[in-house]
Amino acid sequence: MALLVLGSVAFDDVRTPSGYRERVLGGSATYFAWAASTLVQTDLIAAVGRDFPAEFTEMLRGRKIGLDGLVKMADIDTFHWSGRYGEDLNVAQTNWVKINVLGKWKPVVPPKWRNHPFVFLANDAPQNQLAALDQMVKPRLVLCDTRDLWIDQDRAGLEVVMKRTDGIVLNDGEARQLTKERNLIRAASKLHDLGSRIAIIKKGEHGAFLSVEGKGFALPAYPVAEVVDPTGAGDSFAGGLMGYLARRGETDFRALKRAMLAGTITASFCVEDFSLDRLRSLDVAAFDRRMGEFEQFLSL
Amino acid sequence: MALLVLGSVAFDDVRTPSGYRERVLGGSATYFAWAASTLVQTDLIAAVGRDFPAEFTEMLRGRKIGLDGLVKMADIDTFHWSGRYGEDLNVAQTNWVKINVLGKWKPVVPPKWRNHPFVFLANDAPQNQLAALDQMVKPRLVLCDTRDLWIDQDRAGLEVVMKRTDGIVLNDGEARQLTKERNLIRAASKLHDLGSRIAIIKKGEHGAFLSVEGKGFALPAYPVAEVVDPTGAGDSFAGGLMGYLARRGETDFRALKRAMLAGTITASFCVEDFSLDRLRSLDVAAFDRRMGEFEQFLSL
Repeated sequence: MALLVLGSVAFDDVRTPSGYRERVLGGSATYFAWAASTLVQTDLIAAVGRDFPAEFTEMLRGRKIGLDGLVKMADIDTFHWSGRYGEDLNVAQTNWVKINVLGKWKPVVPPKWRNHPFVFLANDAPQNQLAALDQMVKPRLVLCDTRDLWIDQDRAGLEVVMKRTDGIVLNDGEARQLTKERNLIRAASKLHDLGSRIAIIKKGEHGAFLSVEGKGFALPAYPVAEVVDPTGAGDSFAGGLMGYLARRGETDFRALKRAMLAGTITASFCVEDFSLDRLRSLDVAAFDRRMGEFEQFLSL
Repeated sequence: MALLVLGSVAFDDVRTPSGYRERVLGGSATYFAWAASTLVQTDLIAAVGRDFPAEFTEMLRGRKIGLDGLVKMADIDTFHWSGRYGEDLNVAQTNWVKINVLGKWKPVVPPKWRNHPFVFLANDAPQNQLAALDQMVKPRLVLCDTRDLWIDQDRAGLEVVMKRTDGIVLNDGEARQLTKERNLIRAASKLHDLGSRIAIIKKGEHGAFLSVEGKGFALPAYPVAEVVDPTGAGDSFAGGLMGYLARRGETDFRALKRAMLAGTITASFCVEDFSLDRLRSLDVAAFDRRMGEFEQFLSL
């Protein structure tokens, strides 16, 4: 079934213990769409600036990613993030951010996409998430993401997003910031109270936790011996998860649990190289193979 | 099958966000034996001092814990640890330690226990671990624990222990300190190189990882909404794990994986109250119930 994602497309400068890359393709919607499109057609709502190279657009066009919702703004540059990771690869340090197009942009969903049943609102301003959601006609499953910036600066907007969507996908730090609960079981319970029927908390190398109306499930991460660049792991996780659900057209608890595996596997590929380099060569066969290995790894 | 543990019996002063307890019963061997004895008879090799109260000895006697190897030294006090936990309950801060008996004691295994097939060398000086091991006759499975102090002060002794035992049970910080590898998959691989065929890395609220000659398995923690006191969680984990194996008389990979569940469950009870308070009322029925819930929680 058709899948839509709203979010950012960005330039990333990133330094990790494995090296440095400048002005590589990044952004929440990019990672999500790339990851999800391994499994299902994924239509992208995002904005880039005048400096966005044709080469990156071509890269996206080579995948099952719909680009009719990718707006190129003429008088401003693309969102640009510069960050680094130290020995603890779970924590990104931001050097600087140039918001650029993200400060100007209002999302428009092309009419032919407004009936898409699966929708992911990746990290973006709550007002943009709501603007996109307003254009959708009765989607079957909508999950959202957010980040520290919006929890700080537009908590009210975020709470509306939570009430109007089926669930939220957060990392552990964000879940704690949003709920003021250190314990993640209690944090998930508060996310339910705030309106998210489905709460998914990602813990990087420590795996992920799912709570659906209080019914829980947890997974360790797929064991990756060499993490090269964790950037985009969370968005790839969400992409694998939603891609899995959309491919099967399922949204029940069992499907969500299996989708958590798919998300974990997709993120494990993402972190094996910089930017989209590992995901670029990922196909369904390699994905399925690792799913099998992971099920073996988890089997009792 | 019979199970032997060598380690410490201690007084603990502990402060957590939930409260403060002074001079409560603690120590690596105490937690281990208490946890394991829910499942199987557990014989204890440890030393206490002249100040160890009869009430604590009676508490231990009430369980299936053999006390013929518990030495009471006349002219010195019991090992005493004072520590605290902040918001991050994964990390204990030590206020002070009074080594007392632990600096004087040489373990003696009563002859009737020397043929025990299952042996756990809980945290103690490597020379004491080796002294106990020297007295055992062909045990079937020996696992050991250690801590930062011994990795720093007697690495050579610890490496001999690792070569002479089947495996090691460590927390993530200790595994990193010992192997100088941040990534736990690589850390486990180095533990194998150092002689541990079985490597078990505990990650507190993030679960645990098992590697047997490179074959891996991981588990999230059992979800505990309110952690009161994490002291002894690691020792309880080891106690549940070894108790499970000794009860079944099994040591293969599948049994080790199931034993990881048993350890996780036992630790989840331990942290629900101070000292041994929750483990004191634990019986096989409550243990089995939670094992069932945990399997449900993990099921795909």
